[in-house]
Amino acid sequence: MKKTLFVLLISTLLCTNGFSQQAIWGGSEIVSPEIHPNNSVTFRLHAPNAKEVKLTGEWTQGSIFMNKDDKGVWSHTTAPLSSNLYGYSFWVDSLRTIDPSNVYINRDVATVFNIFIIGGGNGDYYKVNKVPHGSVTRRWYYSPGNEMERRITIYTPPGYESGKEKYPVLYLLHGMGGDEEAWMALGRTSQILDNLIAQGKAKPMIVVMTNGNVAQEAAPGESSLGFYKPGGRLPHTSDGKMEETFIDVISFVENNYRVIKDKSGRAVAGLSMGGFHAMGISRYYPNTFDYVGLFSHATRPREEGSPVYQNIDEALAAQKKNGYKLYWIAIGKTDFLYKAVEDYRAKLDSMDFKYTYVESEGGHTWSNWRDYMIQFVPLLFK
Amino acid sequence: MKKTLFVLLISTLLCTNGFSQQAIWGGSEIVSPEIHPNNSVTFRLHAPNAKEVKLTGEWTQGSIFMNKDDKGVWSHTTAPLSSNLYGYSFWVDSLRTIDPSNVYINRDVATVFNIFIIGGGNGDYYKVNKVPHGSVTRRWYYSPGNEMERRITIYTPPGYESGKEKYPVLYLLHGMGGDEEAWMALGRTSQILDNLIAQGKAKPMIVVMTNGNVAQEAAPGESSLGFYKPGGRLPHTSDGKMEETFIDVISFVENNYRVIKDKSGRAVAGLSMGGFHAMGISRYYPNTFDYVGLFSHATRPREEGSPVYQNIDEALAAQKKNGYKLYWIAIGKTDFLYKAVEDYRAKLDSMDFKYTYVESEGGHTWSNWRDYMIQFVPLLFK
Repeated sequence: MKKTLFVLLISTLLCTNGFSQQAIWGGSEIVSPEIHPNNSVTFRLHAPNAKEVKLTGEWTQGSIFMNKDDKGVWSHTTAPLSSNLYGYSFWVDSLRTIDPSNVYINRDVATVFNIFIIGGGNGDYYKVNKVPHGSVTRRWYYSPGNEMERRITIYTPPGYESGKEKYPVLYLLHGMGGDEEAWMALGRTSQILDNLIAQGKAKPMIVVMTNGNVAQEAAPGESSLGFYKPGGRLPHTSDGKMEETFIDVISFVENNYRVIKDKSGRAVAGLSMGGFHAMGISRYYPNTFDYVGLFSHATRPREEGSPVYQNIDEALAAQKKNGYKLYWIAIGKTDFLYKAVEDYRAKLDSMDFKYTYVESEGGHTWSNWRDYMIQFVPLLFK
Repeated sequence: MKKTLFVLLISTLLCTNGFSQQAIWGGSEIVSPEIHPNNSVTFRLHAPNAKEVKLTGEWTQGSIFMNKDDKGVWSHTTAPLSSNLYGYSFWVDSLRTIDPSNVYINRDVATVFNIFIIGGGNGDYYKVNKVPHGSVTRRWYYSPGNEMERRITIYTPPGYESGKEKYPVLYLLHGMGGDEEAWMALGRTSQILDNLIAQGKAKPMIVVMTNGNVAQEAAPGESSLGFYKPGGRLPHTSDGKMEETFIDVISFVENNYRVIKDKSGRAVAGLSMGGFHAMGISRYYPNTFDYVGLFSHATRPREEGSPVYQNIDEALAAQKKNGYKLYWIAIGKTDFLYKAVEDYRAKLDSMDFKYTYVESEGGHTWSNWRDYMIQFVPLLFK
C-alpha cells in the first residue's frame, strides 16, 4: 500500500488560493452553526477587525449582538429552539453577510441566507432521511397560451419509474417573487413528500411545481435573461393570464406522466399569490380538482378584466354544486392577509361553501407554509 | 381595473425584515457585478464602515484593493475580460464575503462564491440560451456493490421523453471533494450540452453524473448526514472501490433509460480524481467504452491492492487490442499534475497506445474543465 500522488495533490492545493486551483478544502476551521444536544445553537464568525457583529434569524425578531473572544471569534448561543428549518445572516459592521462556515444557503427572491435544521418535530420532515427517495426533474414544456418554452420542476414518488401505476398529481404554486425552485429550496417539498410517503401518511403522488410568473421562461439564472438581479414587479401574475394558461401545464403533465386524469386525482395548492392562483384555477376550470389548498392566500386580482374574475359567485356556486373533497384554507394569526382571508371565509360561509380552516401562529412565512404542507398533503387522494 | 390588495401586500413586505415575512424585495439597490459593453466589469459593495475591501476573482491572481466613494460604496472596474464563467469574492477587513447584490452562487467543496458570465466565446456555452433544453433529474439508485442507495444526476437531451430513439451515454466523473452536483453547478454541463446539441456540434446524448465518493450516499446536504461541513478525506475514492462498483451505475442506466448498450454508445470522462477513475474504469471493464476523456487526471491510486490496479500493462494492452475510437487526454501547462500526465503519456507512447493530447494554458481549474467539455463532447459518438 503506497501513499502516492494524492498526498502531493492535497498539500499543493492547500497552498493555493481558492481561485487559482480547485478549492478542495477552502472552508475555515470554525464550526458554525453548532447544534447542541438541547437544540440550542452556537453561531461563530472569525472577524477580528470588526467593531460589531450581529445575527438575525428566523427564530427571533430583531438583531442579536454577538460577543468577541480574544482570538477575534464572535459568537452567540441561542436558547433551545423548536424543531424547524431556520434562516439566518450575520451583519458585520452593518454589512449583511453569509456565514463562511456554512455552505447551506437558500435564496428568497433577491436575498441569500444560510440555513440549518433542528430535528425532533417538523424539522424531521425537512431532512433527507434514510427512506425511499422520489426523483426531482427540471424540464421544459411548451405553453401555447404564453407562446413560450417554460421551465417546470416535477417530483415523482419512489417507485414511479419502475412501476405501471397511475398517480394523482398535486399542482403546487409559489408566491410573489418565487419561481419553480421556491417550493423545492424554501419549501423542502421533496423531503416532506419522501418522509410523509415513507411513514404511510401520504399517498404516493406527483408534485408539479410551476413557474407562476407567466411572463418568465424560468427562475432567475435559468432562462435566457441570464444572471440578472431578481425583483421588481412582473406582468401577468395577477391579471388572470396565469390561470387562463394553466391548462397548458395540466395538458403537459397528463400527456407526459402516468397520472389519474380526473378530478379525484388532481389537487391544486399554493401560498400567497400561489394561493390566489389556486383559488382561481379551482374555480375557473369546472369540475377539475377535488382538492384545493389555500395557504395564506391573496384574495383579489390586480386587474379584474380576465374571465377568471367574472361571475365569481356563479363560478363558486358551480364549484360547490359539482362537489369536491377538500377545500383547505390556512393562515397565520399575524399574517397581513388575515383580514382578507376572513372576508373570503365570510363569503364562503354565506354560500354554505364547505371548507376546512386552520389558523396557525405567526405570519406570512415559509415556516408556516412548510407546516401547512405537512398538514395538507396527508389529506389528499384518500 | 382596480389596484387592490397586492399594493398593500408589497408595501407591507417592504417594511418588514427579511425573516419576519416573505422577503419579496430583500436585495440592495447596488448593481454588482455590472458587465460593460467592452466586457470590463464593475464590482460594487456598500460597506461604509469597512477600512479595507478587496476583491479576488478567477480572472486574476492575488487580491485587488477596491476604492471607496463618499457614499461608502467600494468599487473596482476590471480590464475587459475574455469570455468565461468567473467566480469572485469580496474580503471586507479580511472577512471573506459574498456579494450581497449578486444572488448567483456556486459551492466548490466548502467554499461559496459568486459567479458571472462574460459572453462572446466559451461563456456563450455556459449560458442558458433560447435553444431546446434537456431535462435534468436528481434520482436515487441502489448500488449492490456499496450496499447503499446513492444519488445520481442525469441529463437527458431535448426530445428524449417524447421519442423512441436510443441514445449514447457519457458517464461524467467529478474530482476530489466534488459530488453529483459538481459537473452541473461548476461545470455548466446541461448548458454546454444544450448549446452544443442545438448548434449541431454534438450528438444528442445522455450524461450521467455520478457521485464518485462511494462512501457517500449523496452530495453534502442531500444525504441522511444532514447539513454537515464538507471536506476531509473520504475513504474509497482511490482504492479501487469506485471503479469496482461502477458496474452498478452502468446497470442502472442501461436498465432504466433508452440507451445504446454497446461500446459504441458509451463514453467515460472525468476531471482530476474523476479522470483517474475514468482511466481505471475504461481499462478495468474490457471492451466497454469506445470513448475515454481524461481531464487533468491523477494517475496513481492511494492504495494499490484492488484488482483495478493489478496487471495494468496487460489491461492496457487488451484495451488497445479491443480497440476504441477516442482516448482523449488534456491538461494545463501549469497543472501540478502535468509531470504525472507526461509520464503516463510516455507509458502509452511506449505501448503505441493511441491517444489525442490537448495541452492548454492554465492549471487545475474548472475554467479548463469546462473548456475541455466544449472540445471533447463534439468528438463523441460520431
